[in-house]
Amino acid sequence: MSLPSHVRLVEVGPRDGLQNEAQPISVADKVQLVDALSAAGLSYIEVGSFVSPKWVPQMAGSAEVFAQIQRKPGVTYGALAPNLRGFEDALAAGVKEVAVFAAASEAFSQRNINCSISESLERFAPIMAAAKQHGISVRGYVSCVLGCPYEGEIAPAQVAVVARELYAMGCYEVSLGDTIGTGTAGATRRLFDVVGAQVPRDKLAGHFHDTYGQAVANIYASLLEGINVFDSSIAGLGGCPYAKGASGNVATEDVLYLLNGLGIETGIDLDALIRAGQQISQVLGRPTGSRVAKARNAV
Amino acid sequence: MSLPSHVRLVEVGPRDGLQNEAQPISVADKVQLVDALSAAGLSYIEVGSFVSPKWVPQMAGSAEVFAQIQRKPGVTYGALAPNLRGFEDALAAGVKEVAVFAAASEAFSQRNINCSISESLERFAPIMAAAKQHGISVRGYVSCVLGCPYEGEIAPAQVAVVARELYAMGCYEVSLGDTIGTGTAGATRRLFDVVGAQVPRDKLAGHFHDTYGQAVANIYASLLEGINVFDSSIAGLGGCPYAKGASGNVATEDVLYLLNGLGIETGIDLDALIRAGQQISQVLGRPTGSRVAKARNAV
Repeated sequence: MSLPSHVRLVEVGPRDGLQNEAQPISVADKVQLVDALSAAGLSYIEVGSFVSPKWVPQMAGSAEVFAQIQRKPGVTYGALAPNLRGFEDALAAGVKEVAVFAAASEAFSQRNINCSISESLERFAPIMAAAKQHGISVRGYVSCVLGCPYEGEIAPAQVAVVARELYAMGCYEVSLGDTIGTGTAGATRRLFDVVGAQVPRDKLAGHFHDTYGQAVANIYASLLEGINVFDSSIAGLGGCPYAKGASGNVATEDVLYLLNGLGIETGIDLDALIRAGQQISQVLGRPTGSRVAKARNAV
Repeated sequence: MSLPSHVRLVEVGPRDGLQNEAQPISVADKVQLVDALSAAGLSYIEVGSFVSPKWVPQMAGSAEVFAQIQRKPGVTYGALAPNLRGFEDALAAGVKEVAVFAAASEAFSQRNINCSISESLERFAPIMAAAKQHGISVRGYVSCVLGCPYEGEIAPAQVAVVARELYAMGCYEVSLGDTIGTGTAGATRRLFDVVGAQVPRDKLAGHFHDTYGQAVANIYASLLEGINVFDSSIAGLGGCPYAKGASGNVATEDVLYLLNGLGIETGIDLDALIRAGQQISQVLGRPTGSRVAKARNAV
């Protein structure tokens, strides 16, 4: 099977990444990060999350971040909106695209968002309606697609049900997340094979965590299945390689290195990307989680 | 293309790994490591190198290590023998299999072993003859197969020439090494495609470094090309993730995790392997380079 000629990387570092770092950072540092990422050529940046800062203190100030970033033409600046209240806050902040978040595992859904999978989908209905009304596009996430910390293995058919629901509700794209990073290349291919029969493959994205060192291989496996949108996190934000229980978002630099090597177009400049990662790593006072950045810095 | 049903992992940690760690360790610690690796089910362990301790102090005591390890039936205990003197020392130490080391890059050959590629191959001739005489099998390495720190890109055809020579001289297997870890999945497939036309694929092995985070993906790409022997290094020995310029041997644990996920037989027990890696990491006083071990330890 031939590889896609072009891949879109969805940069989730400022949201999914920073949300999972122990240390909250300032609005100014977030703005600097987002602007550095758009300058490096990323066309999609998930900037923040409209949730209560009581629950997710790292995401406090998302509205201020949106107000202060330099909006580059052609770049989508997204935000997570877990409920209608969050959607309305996002709308007020001038957000043009939001993301909603479901799980493929009942146990994870209960523990993570306190409701069943079907209840979570019901909660999205008013968001989808409001988004349609305001011309806002909605991206869907499905977590635990290759394993759940509570249930263990997750059947691809179960993922397909949730992905199809999100797509049917109006999500223009559904990102399948290996939240705990336990998936390997063969399981990844089977997943896209099964889900791809329910949702068009060009409406699916892959979201891999490098917890077990498999993310880049899983992305290559996904490319072989015709998937050409991937979520990744600058400097591997969200999974400090030095912390216990590191969740390990795959580093954008390492994914871009793969894509460059395969001759796949992304529009992203690796050197500028590495600089953006260095900057945020310095802010956080921790080493980069990107192997490419580490190797380049060592030269 | 279907994946191989069985893979042999060649554990190079005690040699290629420890040789590149800053700190030499004791014979007793090496013996403990080798025995832990054979107990975990590895069928091939590269135990040491018969070189002057003046040049490679980390490999001092290789003869003593061979004398003290518990030789488990069915396990091959190999050693690097860079010249006839080294071969004779290996023979005296009871070594049954040796490895010789050539480069695919002229510049690397000159700087690393002080001779041209063809001179290095000439030097192997007496080793091959002596090995044949004593019933010793010889494994060949080719380094810099996907890039050279001095020459940059290396043509697969150039690798094929060196690999074919080693095979023609009597090496029963030729391991192709991405010494600087710059290779990506597509280049890996092209490499085996070109070299596989000169040397039977079942006589080729892949040796990947994870410097740029690509090793597991490159191994998956190699499996898709029918390659079923891979070199790897317990705990990622040889490339401390915290050091500048880390050379980054891929961690055996991370490769085994991939293979287990793909349902490929290896005969190796992951838990025992992780314990062996923890032990040697403690000896070296540094964190493991294996993401799988890190994730498992965090649970």
